[in-house]
Amino acid sequence: MIKQPQFTEEPWLLRETGLDLDRLAQTESVFALSNGHIGWRGNLDEGEPHGLPGTYLNGVYEVRPMPYSEPAYSLPESGQTVINVTNGRLIRLFADDEPFDVRYGKLNSHERVLDFRAGTLTRHAEWTSPVGGSVRVRSTRLVSFTHRAIGAVCYEVEPLDSSLQIGVQSGLIANEQLPPAAADPRAAAVLEHPLVAEYHASHENSVVLVHKTRHSGLRVAAAMDHVIDAPAEMRVETQLTEDGGLVTAVVALQPGQRFRLIKFVGYGWSSKRSRNALRDQVWAALIGARHMGWDGLLSAQRTYLDDFWSRADVEVHGDVEIQQAVRFGLFHVLQAGARGEERPIAAKGLTGPGYDGHAFWDTESFVLPVLTLTAPEAAASPLRWRHATLPAAQQRAAQLGLKGAAFPWRTIAGQESSGYWPAGTAAFHVNADIADAVERYIDATADEEFAKAEGIELLVNTARLWRSLGHHDGAGRFHISGVTGPDEYSAIADDNIYTNLMARHNLLNAASMAEKYPDRARELGVDPEETAEWRDAAQAMFVPFDETLGVHQQANAFTRHQVWDFDSTPPDHYPLLLHYPYFDLYRKQVVKQADLVLAMQLCSWAFTAEQKRRNFDYYEALTVRDSSLSACTQAVMAAEVGHVGLAFDYLGEAALMDLDDLEHNTRDGVHIASLAGTWIALVWGFGGLRHFDGTVSFVPRLPEGINRLAYTIMIRGRRLRVEVTHEVAHYLLAEGEPLDIKHYGHQLTLSAGDPQDRPIPDVPAQPRPSQPRGREPVRRQVGGKTV
Amino acid sequence: MIKQPQFTEEPWLLRETGLDLDRLAQTESVFALSNGHIGWRGNLDEGEPHGLPGTYLNGVYEVRPMPYSEPAYSLPESGQTVINVTNGRLIRLFADDEPFDVRYGKLNSHERVLDFRAGTLTRHAEWTSPVGGSVRVRSTRLVSFTHRAIGAVCYEVEPLDSSLQIGVQSGLIANEQLPPAAADPRAAAVLEHPLVAEYHASHENSVVLVHKTRHSGLRVAAAMDHVIDAPAEMRVETQLTEDGGLVTAVVALQPGQRFRLIKFVGYGWSSKRSRNALRDQVWAALIGARHMGWDGLLSAQRTYLDDFWSRADVEVHGDVEIQQAVRFGLFHVLQAGARGEERPIAAKGLTGPGYDGHAFWDTESFVLPVLTLTAPEAAASPLRWRHATLPAAQQRAAQLGLKGAAFPWRTIAGQESSGYWPAGTAAFHVNADIADAVERYIDATADEEFAKAEGIELLVNTARLWRSLGHHDGAGRFHISGVTGPDEYSAIADDNIYTNLMARHNLLNAASMAEKYPDRARELGVDPEETAEWRDAAQAMFVPFDETLGVHQQANAFTRHQVWDFDSTPPDHYPLLLHYPYFDLYRKQVVKQADLVLAMQLCSWAFTAEQKRRNFDYYEALTVRDSSLSACTQAVMAAEVGHVGLAFDYLGEAALMDLDDLEHNTRDGVHIASLAGTWIALVWGFGGLRHFDGTVSFVPRLPEGINRLAYTIMIRGRRLRVEVTHEVAHYLLAEGEPLDIKHYGHQLTLSAGDPQDRPIPDVPAQPRPSQPRGREPVRRQVGGKTV
Repeated sequence: MIKQPQFTEEPWLLRETGLDLDRLAQTESVFALSNGHIGWRGNLDEGEPHGLPGTYLNGVYEVRPMPYSEPAYSLPESGQTVINVTNGRLIRLFADDEPFDVRYGKLNSHERVLDFRAGTLTRHAEWTSPVGGSVRVRSTRLVSFTHRAIGAVCYEVEPLDSSLQIGVQSGLIANEQLPPAAADPRAAAVLEHPLVAEYHASHENSVVLVHKTRHSGLRVAAAMDHVIDAPAEMRVETQLTEDGGLVTAVVALQPGQRFRLIKFVGYGWSSKRSRNALRDQVWAALIGARHMGWDGLLSAQRTYLDDFWSRADVEVHGDVEIQQAVRFGLFHVLQAGARGEERPIAAKGLTGPGYDGHAFWDTESFVLPVLTLTAPEAAASPLRWRHATLPAAQQRAAQLGLKGAAFPWRTIAGQESSGYWPAGTAAFHVNADIADAVERYIDATADEEFAKAEGIELLVNTARLWRSLGHHDGAGRFHISGVTGPDEYSAIADDNIYTNLMARHNLLNAASMAEKYPDRARELGVDPEETAEWRDAAQAMFVPFDETLGVHQQANAFTRHQVWDFDSTPPDHYPLLLHYPYFDLYRKQVVKQADLVLAMQLCSWAFTAEQKRRNFDYYEALTVRDSSLSACTQAVMAAEVGHVGLAFDYLGEAALMDLDDLEHNTRDGVHIASLAGTWIALVWGFGGLRHFDGTVSFVPRLPEGINRLAYTIMIRGRRLRVEVTHEVAHYLLAEGEPLDIKHYGHQLTLSAGDPQDRPIPDVPAQPRPSQPRGREPVRRQVGGKTV
Repeated sequence: MIKQPQFTEEPWLLRETGLDLDRLAQTESVFALSNGHIGWRGNLDEGEPHGLPGTYLNGVYEVRPMPYSEPAYSLPESGQTVINVTNGRLIRLFADDEPFDVRYGKLNSHERVLDFRAGTLTRHAEWTSPVGGSVRVRSTRLVSFTHRAIGAVCYEVEPLDSSLQIGVQSGLIANEQLPPAAADPRAAAVLEHPLVAEYHASHENSVVLVHKTRHSGLRVAAAMDHVIDAPAEMRVETQLTEDGGLVTAVVALQPGQRFRLIKFVGYGWSSKRSRNALRDQVWAALIGARHMGWDGLLSAQRTYLDDFWSRADVEVHGDVEIQQAVRFGLFHVLQAGARGEERPIAAKGLTGPGYDGHAFWDTESFVLPVLTLTAPEAAASPLRWRHATLPAAQQRAAQLGLKGAAFPWRTIAGQESSGYWPAGTAAFHVNADIADAVERYIDATADEEFAKAEGIELLVNTARLWRSLGHHDGAGRFHISGVTGPDEYSAIADDNIYTNLMARHNLLNAASMAEKYPDRARELGVDPEETAEWRDAAQAMFVPFDETLGVHQQANAFTRHQVWDFDSTPPDHYPLLLHYPYFDLYRKQVVKQADLVLAMQLCSWAFTAEQKRRNFDYYEALTVRDSSLSACTQAVMAAEVGHVGLAFDYLGEAALMDLDDLEHNTRDGVHIASLAGTWIALVWGFGGLRHFDGTVSFVPRLPEGINRLAYTIMIRGRRLRVEVTHEVAHYLLAEGEPLDIKHYGHQLTLSAGDPQDRPIPDVPAQPRPSQPRGREPVRRQVGGKTV
């Protein structure tokens, strides 16, 4: 992968110093702003040129029919797809009637900066129009973390060399024209013209539009208002149609004079609330924003982020690029979930339409472990969303002939939207992943209220699923047959080890929870016979092991399959799924993404250190990483088994997934789980953090390329700061009751404000394992790419 | 299943003595006429009412897009679907202007007779019109076995009580309006208005229409001519549009006077020939038919069938219903293949649009074994068709990353038309089935010309497929992973026993063939290293066996799966595929149709007698027979392992599949393979015939319900007649060189004209095995249902 020198390396910023129109769609994703409720892609203010215009509201989708060449029982007949809602960030500029369009005239300079502490996207441009007038444009944009319904833009223009008539046109546009959808099946099925107009009105410089989606019947309201400031007499007019409102201001300026437009945009949506209620709600949000004012919004945004970083920051010394990447990743992870409020966190957050805007298991398995330890309130919210979709999941389980709940493989509102069951419905592990996230959240936060309300219901329903999905053989072993694990290059296998181990954990946790909250258990119809059944199934869970090779099997018979012919696979045939049939991938030893290796990370208790080492090396030679959900897991386990250099390489891959567009699909949105993976690779991998069943333990070990790693996590309401160098680990509990932790297996009690140091033992490096030919990770140099 | 008393039981006829409009579609299938080239459903002459109008030309299809919710590499983007071509058998009748429509007025009597020796469908009706006039109508219809391009109708009318003006209108209609397609996925995707008009003309009482299919670009010509005979002055006029021609004759008749119209219909189609060439070809066919005349066609039809029955008839004493059914079945099997001439035999023949008109593996595995021994020239033709599609199969193999040829799971012209790969592409056994049919045909006919030309190419290409599809494990065993066997309630399994054993046979036969025809082998690039590889893979082929249970496994790990909960499955939940998800069916022990049991029939050499018994009983308890391709196989193996009474029950099920509409989809066409299965159950099952590697052997044993079974088969050009009673088997070679056979393992040399008797040994009956609850076959009474 060629490193594309597009962004400068700065610890707290992502700065782009030019404008490459061919990479516009990628940068729109990378520069997207969101608060988990509203998502604004980083489109240029003037709307065009664009890669893909995108404005999203978490939970707003359209239903579309799902076609099958050969229909079958239980395949979903329709699916949910995220739609592009009303665009409120459009601001067009005219200089002496020439439209500011970077494709015409001369762009003298162009810079965009995403500021992780300010929570803003700033743009500076200097442009000379085709007829000769030059302007300087500066815009700053935010989607408010504190005012959930609000996005805002501050747009400033000044003529540079000569006086110009400046026109600025601010738009609110529904049903924008979209470029044709890509052929790549992973890209979203973009829906054309999804909004039906219900109401439009304007008042002075403000406009409101209410629309409804055609099939899903969701009502969307958007409104804008403006504060316009110019040093000369202006003319301001407002135009209105059912799909759009435009406020145009025109003023003649001398060089040095500056025009400023502050735009406030409010959004609301509902499946239940009336047109008027929704309209009035966005008016109210706008008034609130105007009351705060632009500076007020900016300052609240920074305060919110200061608080976040005080709980979540990771400092990486020795590698500026990784330093930047982990903060970029955390910023996007926060953006995806901060104010979702019982809505899902989609695979691409609200940064693009990729994967149809669906949420998958990656939320629970990659994103929530990070949020749980950095922004716990943002972790609870998507779990509450899962809980809210329990009725749909129970209905799905019944349809499939199972008990409890079968959560969907991909969805927006809770209904299964996967049209390919071998890699959808069969991937039951999503249920254990949800249970694991619940358990991990409760373990880290001790949130009793959540545990008793939503937590126990999620655990009980998923435990019931596993009990009904599996069966005992004659020898008393419990098997789960015909399911698909995380590795999407295998499917419909018996006893997928990840699924079995995670299900085991799920069953045991559900039983413990029922024991802990007997009243709630009784309400849910759980009796001791049922919990005994869960415990029995968990204890009897079959774990496939190949005695001849001395390694675990990803699934029963896996290690007896033919090994993929990596030597004959040309480099341009990756990702394999675009060049080889599933039938061939499924029946051979080739791994798309960590599966057994992820099981070793999450179910550490099921493996000896020696088994982990042997397993890691065996599966390393089979894993092609055609998924973005692999490098971080491989980093964690490489670090654990002693391949610290290799772990550093995988850290680099996880960290640069979107910044370097390693999978060539960042245009459709950033990979939220992989961005979370940067944190996981650093904190779980080199920080050596594990938390499980009330125990917080650390086995830190740094790679050569990192001199010092410092991070903060939230444990039961208290900040714990960990600093690691090659020689020593430094633990500091910031506040609260004392906390027991483990350092390299040794117990340690931390008291608030009383730092403790512990030496890092020397561990001999292991011989580096091999990867499939051509799929070796890029070797990361000491000091990062800048060396 | 309630026996529907619709048809009378007569040994050489199928007679329907009333008209049940609710069963119209079923009877249209059952009464369909075909010669393997043209197919005419048994629609009423006057076109309406109808279940489904249907006129088919073997090989004429339209392409349609195949949709996927989640597209993937190698899934076919379009499929082929049989279309309803120009209807030439329409004859409308008017009595004093009242149209003859059985839904109006009074139908005093109605009888239809399919005559297996005459090869005709005859209809008698007496009808009183709503205004009072009564007529007697008699029509006889045939699709000529001797004049491949011709169908004909003789239509006679006479007034009964009063004089009437009789109008008879004969039509040739393209793009008939069709009823909406059914929701059942197994029904065809009926295509609306598939024909684009290219040419239309009339000349006196004749009409010709030339059309072209819109996407597949196939040209279809149809023409009709008439001989009209009336005892009074007639007026005859012809009308013509681009989609239809009508010849109307009007005459006033007294009671006792009879009007007669003979209609000749000619068809032709081509993907290459020009409009004029095709038009002239159907004119020529019509002139030929008129030259023969109606009586000439009738007599040639009977001669053709006399010859067929002399080679193919099966006499069953003691069960009239089975007697009728086996002849009905043989008649339809002959109709499906007789004059196909290098076209496929579709699953429904040319009797309906079911399964989109596709040919599957059932042709090679069920239909060709029958034709090979009864009408060998009709067996060679579909194998030559397979050979003609070899380039497409080689291309498909290359696309899948395999060597040799990968024949399609379902197709009309050779391209894969399956849109669900786990039960399509993964069902590689179709390739071994083709090879087996080739080998069986060569074994029975000693057709050296075919063997050297097409036979060896088919065997070599399929052997290459198997070698590239399988792999050796460390212990040297050869495995075929991730494939689907005949049982469609399992999929993507390792080492499906049917596939492995059939592939083994395929590999060995290809090697023998290459040894036998070294020059041809060299032309095909086969060298001794390659044949050695085939033999090695065949010898090392893994055969899964469960040591604990002492039975073979349908596939690796199959017997370790959970057994389907038959006790909780309500009777109306069959077929299971319409009520349960594939994921659940696949991962449990439940068998849709004989798989391992079919392997025991076709690969008898791989099992000991004791293993067969144990396996049969084990799988019997799991097999639900949701496919029509199961009962006959179960009959054969039940008879072999000693369950003769059970075999008799399964014979009944196979025999009555369409006559009693046991699967409720005979409306879409008859089940050609199941009809062939009646013969297989009788001849292989109770006749005990096996032929394999040059050996013809017999282990006959009759059930209580059959007193005497007599059948003729063709072995290397000679008729061999076998008569079996409970006590003795009687063998007579009709002509030619002496023939060695085996009777209960003892060799016997038959000389032409010298009959030999051998006693049937007493074999103790085995305890009857059990079936899944509610899926027991109907117990067939001695004497059939009439007892």
